[in-house]
Amino acid sequence: MRVIHYSEVPAERVEEDAKGVWIRWVIREEDGAKNFVMRHFEIEPGGYTPHHTHPWEHEVFILGGSGVLVGEDSETEFGEGDVIFVPASEKHQFKNTGRGSLRLLCMIPSKDRCKL
Amino acid sequence: MRVIHYSEVPAERVEEDAKGVWIRWVIREEDGAKNFVMRHFEIEPGGYTPHHTHPWEHEVFILGGSGVLVGEDSETEFGEGDVIFVPASEKHQFKNTGRGSLRLLCMIPSKDRCKL
Repeated sequence: MRVIHYSEVPAERVEEDAKGVWIRWVIREEDGAKNFVMRHFEIEPGGYTPHHTHPWEHEVFILGGSGVLVGEDSETEFGEGDVIFVPASEKHQFKNTGRGSLRLLCMIPSKDRCKL
Repeated sequence: MRVIHYSEVPAERVEEDAKGVWIRWVIREEDGAKNFVMRHFEIEPGGYTPHHTHPWEHEVFILGGSGVLVGEDSETEFGEGDVIFVPASEKHQFKNTGRGSLRLLCMIPSKDRCKL
């Protein structure tokens, strides 16, 4: 079993079509996570993730701050304690519209899922 | 896409070999989560989950409070912001040793994983 504080994992800047987004891969496949992995995101005020789509889902929990989830043609506000499910292949973007940092967990399937 | 506050999901008491434990299934297979599901746990002061083992892993994030993770023959303290990975088939138990409520997210694989 492994217990670490999320802040012990180095934060990497997300470069592609994003602004002010930092990612920490807190539970990775290398840790033994064969089915899904956990990432911690921090998005600066005014920052956003790419407005994109991909063939895997997101399961998200908002740890702190507030923002909007931008879909194909919709915007939904969210805040601390909200749970978000983004199905595979749905266009999405997380924008920080608050004054402070937006912090969230985002889980995705592992790459080697179902190959065991 | 689906956005709800975790508290909108009814809390169910965990009965089996547990004390003061409440679970909310915030992202379920019925929501389209074919690979893994998200549960929100609240454990009262002095409460604990079963000291058990099963053939699937846990990915946990501590939202608030403090406690100990009891293994086969070890105890590890944890607190807010800690990330815990419990591999499949390792004995484990979460105990609330703090004064307040212990809140955590715990993700597990979906039952129908890899059957698509």
